[in-house]
Parts: sequence; C-alpha cells; structure tokens
Amino acid sequence: MLLNCDLGESFGAWEMGLDKEAMPFIDMANVACGFHAGDPSVMQKTIALAKQHDVLLGAHPSYPDLQGFGRRSLTMAKQELINCIHYQIAALEGMAKVAGMTLSYVKPHGALYNDMMRDESILTTLIEAIHQYPSELKLMILATSRAKQHRALAQQHKVTLLMEAFADRLYTDEGMLTPRSEPHAVHSEEKLLEQVKLLAGSQSVITASGHKLALAADTLCVHGDNLHAIKQIEKIRKILNGSM
Amino acid sequence: MLLNCDLGESFGAWEMGLDKEAMPFIDMANVACGFHAGDPSVMQKTIALAKQHDVLLGAHPSYPDLQGFGRRSLTMAKQELINCIHYQIAALEGMAKVAGMTLSYVKPHGALYNDMMRDESILTTLIEAIHQYPSELKLMILATSRAKQHRALAQQHKVTLLMEAFADRLYTDEGMLTPRSEPHAVHSEEKLLEQVKLLAGSQSVITASGHKLALAADTLCVHGDNLHAIKQIEKIRKILNGSM
Amino acid sequence: MLLNCDLGESFGAWEMGLDKEAMPFIDMANVACGFHAGDPSVMQKTIALAKQHDVLLGAHPSYPDLQGFGRRSLTMAKQELINCIHYQIAALEGMAKVAGMTLSYVKPHGALYNDMMRDESILTTLIEAIHQYPSELKLMILATSRAKQHRALAQQHKVTLLMEAFADRLYTDEGMLTPRSEPHAVHSEEKLLEQVKLLAGSQSVITASGHKLALAADTLCVHGDNLHAIKQIEKIRKILNGSM
Amino acid sequence: MLLNCDLGESFGAWEMGLDKEAMPFIDMANVACGFHAGDPSVMQKTIALAKQHDVLLGAHPSYPDLQGFGRRSLTMAKQELINCIHYQIAALEGMAKVAGMTLSYVKPHGALYNDMMRDESILTTLIEAIHQYPSELKLMILATSRAKQHRALAQQHKVTLLMEAFADRLYTDEGMLTPRSEPHAVHSEEKLLEQVKLLAGSQSVITASGHKLALAADTLCVHGDNLHAIKQIEKIRKILNGSM
Repeated sequence: MLLNCDLGESFGAWEMGLDKEAMPFIDMANVACGFHAGDPSVMQKTIALAKQHDVLLGAHPSYPDLQGFGRRSLTMAKQELINCIHYQIAALEGMAKVAGMTLSYVKPHGALYNDMMRDESILTTLIEAIHQYPSELKLMILATSRAKQHRALAQQHKVTLLMEAFADRLYTDEGMLTPRSEPHAVHSEEKLLEQVKLLAGSQSVITASGHKLALAADTLCVHGDNLHAIKQIEKIRKILNGSM
Repeated sequence: MLLNCDLGESFGAWEMGLDKEAMPFIDMANVACGFHAGDPSVMQKTIALAKQHDVLLGAHPSYPDLQGFGRRSLTMAKQELINCIHYQIAALEGMAKVAGMTLSYVKPHGALYNDMMRDESILTTLIEAIHQYPSELKLMILATSRAKQHRALAQQHKVTLLMEAFADRLYTDEGMLTPRSEPHAVHSEEKLLEQVKLLAGSQSVITASGHKLALAADTLCVHGDNLHAIKQIEKIRKILNGSM
Repeated sequence: MLLNCDLGESFGAWEMGLDKEAMPFIDMANVACGFHAGDPSVMQKTIALAKQHDVLLGAHPSYPDLQGFGRRSLTMAKQELINCIHYQIAALEGMAKVAGMTLSYVKPHGALYNDMMRDESILTTLIEAIHQYPSELKLMILATSRAKQHRALAQQHKVTLLMEAFADRLYTDEGMLTPRSEPHAVHSEEKLLEQVKLLAGSQSVITASGHKLALAADTLCVHGDNLHAIKQIEKIRKILNGSM
Repeated sequence: MLLNCDLGESFGAWEMGLDKEAMPFIDMANVACGFHAGDPSVMQKTIALAKQHDVLLGAHPSYPDLQGFGRRSLTMAKQELINCIHYQIAALEGMAKVAGMTLSYVKPHGALYNDMMRDESILTTLIEAIHQYPSELKLMILATSRAKQHRALAQQHKVTLLMEAFADRLYTDEGMLTPRSEPHAVHSEEKLLEQVKLLAGSQSVITASGHKLALAADTLCVHGDNLHAIKQIEKIRKILNGSM
C-alpha cells in the first residue's frame, strides 16, 4: 500500500505544506496544477523534489478557484470540465518532462473529488477525460463499498483506478468518510495507527458502528501540513514497512 | 513564405478574432495559452479548427496578465519566466495531443515579444526555455537586420529560429517596425500588398527613408480581427500563390 | 416602469455590449464590478457614460468567476458571500463618487441571480448584505407570483425591493421565466412589444398556457448586445412614453 | 511617531503574517485590497481586528499581480493606474464603513511603492489619484532627503504626505534604503533599536558611511511576519513610549 500526499500547494509568496519534510516518506506526490494552488515555479520545484526522492508524480487538478482553494463546487458543463482537466494534466506533464519525469496518475482535488464520489456523471466525465488523454494515466478515487462498480465503470473506458483509503478518518458503514463536522470524524493518533494496521493487514476498517468493513486500498492518503503530521507519516511508514 | 496568425484569443464569454474565417487561409496558428487570452475550452476549439484546416500549431505564450492582454511588461526573474513559458507550452501541447496534433513552434506574445526583441537577455531566456523543453520546437522572432546574430545565439542552444515579417508595417532603416504611434506606421492596403510582393519576390522591404533593405522572412504575420482583415489575408495568399 | 440594462461587461481588451448605443435609451445601468466582467477602467468609462446620460447606477455583483462570466453556481459560505458582495458594491460606489455619482441599487448577476430566486436562504443573505451596507441601496429581483412574500422578507431587514420583468421572455403560470432551453422561451419582437404594452398598461403578462397573470414590475430588463437589440430598446421606450 | 504595519496579506486558504499578534502594538494598519493579497473575507476580518484595537486603517493598493505578490513592476498607462488605485481604495473603504470604520491613508505596496519613489511621474499619478478620490486620505511615502520637494509636489494637489522611515534598514547618504542584496542592508536587532531611538529622539539616522542624516518621519514601518518580528515591535513600542 503506497503513501500519497497532496503537495505543491504553495502559490506565489504564500507557502503551504512541509513538502521537503514529507517527500522522503511518501511514494506518490499529488501535485497542484495552478487552478486551486501551485504556479509554474511552485510546480517546477515540486517536480524537482519528487525526482530527488524518486516519488511517483500525479496531477491534482481542480475546479478553477484559487480564492476558494478548489473547495467550492462549481457547476461546469461536461466538455468544459474535460478541457479544464486536460489543460491541468498537460501543464504538469510537460513540466515533468522538462525535468526528465513522467506522470503516473490523476487525483482530483477538493470539491471536484467530493463531487466525483457523490455524482456518477462527474466520475464518468473524469474517466472519459483520462481515457482521451494520450498518456497512460490512472485515476485515484476513494475506496468505498462501491469499489467494484467503480472499477467496472472505469474499465468500460479502459481506465485503471487507484483506490485510496484515509488513515485518519472514521468510516461509515457504507464505506464513506464521516463528515468532518461530526464528532469523532478525525481519529486520534492511536486510532489512526490502528486503522493503518488493519488496512494493511486485513484490508478492512472498523466503521462508526463498530463493524468490520472490507476495504481494499491501493494507497493511503497522508498529510504534510505541519511537523506533527510529518511525524505521523513516519509512523505510518514504519507500520507499512513491518517495523512497528 | 508561410502565413502565421494570432488565434484563440477569445476568453470565456468574450469573443475576439474571426478564427473560423481566417483559418482556411493561413499556414500557422499562434494559439493563446491562457495567460493573456484563451482558456481550456477556447484552446480545445482552436486546436480542432487548426486540425480541420491542416494548419501548423504554435504556442503563443505571454506574461501572466489577462486584464492587460499581455501587452504590459512585467519584470520576471529568469527562472520564473522559464517556468511560465514551459507551463503554457505544455498545456497547449498536451491539449493538442488529445486532438492528435503536435506543436511546431513558439511565438511569444505582446509585451514579451517586444521585450525579447529589445533585450537580448530576455531573448536568451526564451531560447533556453525552448532548448530545455523536450519537444523539438522552433522560436518565432522578428526578422531584423540583426537576424544573423540572433540565429547564432539560438544555435548555441540548438534552437532553430523562424523569422517573421509584417506585411502591414513600415520598417525603419534598422529593420525594426516603426512604432504605431508615428504617422505612416501602418500601411494602406496598396502599400501592404506591394510589401508582400517585395518580401516574397526579392526578400526585401522599402524602409521609411526609401531605401531597399534585405529582409529574409520565413513567415508573414497576418491578422484576423475583422472581415476587412480576412479579405487582406486572401489577397496576400493569392500573391504568395503567384496568382495575383 | 424604468428600463434597466446590464452594462460595463467588457474586460481588458475584450469588448462586449453596445454600451454607448444603449445608454441614451435606458434609466438604470447595472454595472459589472470586476468579478464576472468589468475592470477598473471599464467601470470608470461606464460610470462616465451613465453620468452623461443621467442614468441611475446599480451594482451588478457576481460570483467570482471571470472565465465563466458568473454563469456557473459556486457554493459559498454565507459570510463569504456577504463579503464578496460588499467588496463589489464598495468598489463601484467609490469609483462612482470619484465621478460625482451615487449608487442606487444592486442587481445580482447570472448564476447568483438565479440562485437567489431559487433558494430563499441566498436571497436572505443578499438582503442582509444590503441591509448591512451603510448606503441606502435597493435590491432588484425578479417579479414573480411570490413578490408579496419577497417584499415581506426584505422589509424585515428594511431593504426595499425593485421588481423587474422581462420583455422578451415567456412566463410560466407561476410567474417564472420559461427556461431558454424550451421552445418559445424567447419572444419574437411582435410578442415582446405586446408583452411590454401589457406590463405597462395592465401590470400583467400572458403566460405559456394563455392565462393572464398579474405582475407588477418596477422596471423592465432590456439588452444592449447588438444593433438589433438597441432598436428594440428604442421601440420599448416609445411604448412606455405612450408614443407608440 | 506612529507604527505602521502591512497586514491582511493572507489570501483564501493561505495565511501570511501574525496579524492578531501584531495589531495590539501598532497604530496604523496597511490593509491589502485584493490585488496583491487579501480577499473580501480576509479584508473583513482585518478591518474587524483593527477596530478592536483602535488602529487607523490605510489602503495598501498594488499592481494587479497575485502570483507575484505585487513585487513585479507592471507598465500601466496613467489613467489605468488611477482607476486601479481608486478601485482598491473604494473596495476597502466601503468594507470599512460596513464595520463602522473610516479610511485614513493610502500606502502603495511593493513594486508600486518602489516605482513611486524612483519615478516622479508615478508619484504624481498616485497623488492625483488620491486628490480625485472624494474622501480625505493621506499618502504614505518613504522619508528621504527629497522630502521637502515631495511635500511641495503633493501640496500642489492638496494631498498631505505621511513620511515613513524603516527601523531595520541601513540608509544611504542620500536617505534611500540600501538594497537588500547588499551586506548590512538589514540591521541586527541592536542596531535596529538604536535607529529607532535616533529617529524618535533627534529625527535622524546614521547612514552607511557613518554620517548623521536628518530624517523627519511621521511613522515607522514595522513587520509582523513571525514571532521574532512581533517581539521587536514590542521593543520598538517601549522605546517610543519612553519606557526603554
């Protein structure tokens, strides 16, 4: 189970995230493409950092909304959204090539990610966008109890999905994330590490109601916001390496 | 001598230029990449139109300045400018690939074009940016009496230049364009067509002082702003085809 | 019944609307504030034009979305939307003061207008935003069969509403506009002029099903997109002046 | 001598500056207006914070350049720059009025500030912009040996200048700031506090060559970037209060 992390989310003079500290411990870098965060210079530095630590590169495209950090839903027509995704993937891929890197996958960001998991027509649009794109790219989505159905949908368009799980979030019985607004939605470090062990060891989680739910994840999403978060990535890494 | 034209300069709800009318008569489309004009949807449509008419695609990158349409100089650090150029080229190239097209060249836009012709350090930065970019792309600059020197500079970085001339502008004795603010800077249609014949027939222009100046141009810049301009492109096309 | 028109919707190098041609025939100018269209220079020119023709100034605020021209819904938190509205009103009001003008009203633009008519919580947010703003400003909304209820809601916050009707649109029996996607949604000029007479003469419209529906409008929305539209404004003006 | 500080320079999800920590110790808040930093919500919070601590509000307008944080020169036509300044002042002033505050002064930001001190035509444009603006606003510029001449220029347009000095920067013999790129350009804390004492006590500074230069400052610019900077503001405050 690989570790993925949102990175390259600085913008101009504004810094966000401890990219340098997080990069040594992760496998996959989800790099902002300039629509919710990132700018050409931030992207160039993030790509160079990923290269240095031999980390896989993924595009992290978003609705066009810098001020809202891509966290606000925007109603876009289908073709408009496809064009918007192609533009962002292409910008990052070309900059990666300049550095001798290739792009491996796409993980939609923020409101676009949530909308994709909530509305199958948006998921389908994203799958089609990736299918149309000439490079072989996987699409990262949330591992839920609908995973089988999602894989079938993607397969119709010859797109491979990467299923991601969250270490720090409490799951509902339906295999969705408990909204952050509810109590216990975000795990304590102890519970987080237990969830990692369960995900890695038996491909399952304990849901809000205490049931064991099967959840096969290809990758685990981790965060590099602050030093505390970096310490957690190190601990997760050790669990996955079998040394803890 | 090929005809190049700035295209894809609409943005969102705002339309600019008669792209559909101009495309049938030109050879090279300089496509805006979203920094001074163009957006992902405008780019997608412009690429499709170029494909339909078998027109070569060029990136038309700019300083990041939508409100100023890239016509205002912006002091950017060297690496920052390189990143900004790579981002724009990459976005267009990837979108072109989706449509089964490739990118052939880069023509800087507006203030960036003028700054490049005025300041050799900026020209050098652009040459380096194109050299670093993994696809084989030519750089289009203004054909002047310094052409030989410019070609030598580009060759140091293994970049091929495309020299462009203007049909509608009066040249100074130094082979520069007379500023638009001066009288007679922009030719009448009669003089414009004469200049095309001279450029095509004897690779030269008659300058402001009446001298004949050698000017070897690979391509001629034409405009598709309005129906009158489209008519002129047709007439220029006929001259180059030898039918007028 | 006053004529209102969306104006000042150019942006940078992109021109939109025949503002100079429309201004002499209208009473109220809804001026874009830079979030969906307009920029400081466009705003300055539009204000000067309104002054010259003694036209009332209204702010035409929008979701922040230049590329989408404010036509795409954006989910904004309540306080965030209030701040966004205050900023736009304030920018226009200050620029109007520089020209010796005052601001009279606010008409939300595009998706924000539609969302306000669809979702009462958004209408309430806009009413509160205007109530909080220190200048006395009216809020323009769509005249529908819910007008009485809307006026009561506004009165709770001491805000006066301006009810607007559309000359060119077919009304449903509920007093809403028939969506543009449906046939007959937009009137022929003949029907448009009949609707103006009915609105002006007997404060009513004939709905899609042929019923007469009472609709008391303070103002009529007209368009200045092209020369044909300008001619229609002239004809509407004559009807309202009783000379046709 | 009042303390002024650049504040409200967060943007969307990106935080910058310890505004809450700095506000209790300063007299004048230079608030970003959305063109280099700040957005309507950041502005609303910054105004509320200034109100709470009874701090004077100043507009901190910039060239329109979020990605460059207003630190890059942009060639703007005179009227275009005036409009751009009016828009920003107006937006902040209106939002201040919503909170029951008024605006006292204008301090240009970044590259615009530097360009104004370097190029008298830009300073004149800014003075004219403030003269045209209907509220009584002062203009803050750098106190230099040309102060008298600057005051005369401003007086022609009935604008009052606020002269600011820097506590942390080494002055040249001409009363300009030594560029940050040079050694010793930024003072150690010890030298910084000495310079404050000299500025407050005898309205002078010791220049790079060791001379004493008269410099009458109305206000001192302090920084709230980090906790170390906040500590320095506290120490400067104590000196000015005569308690150190």
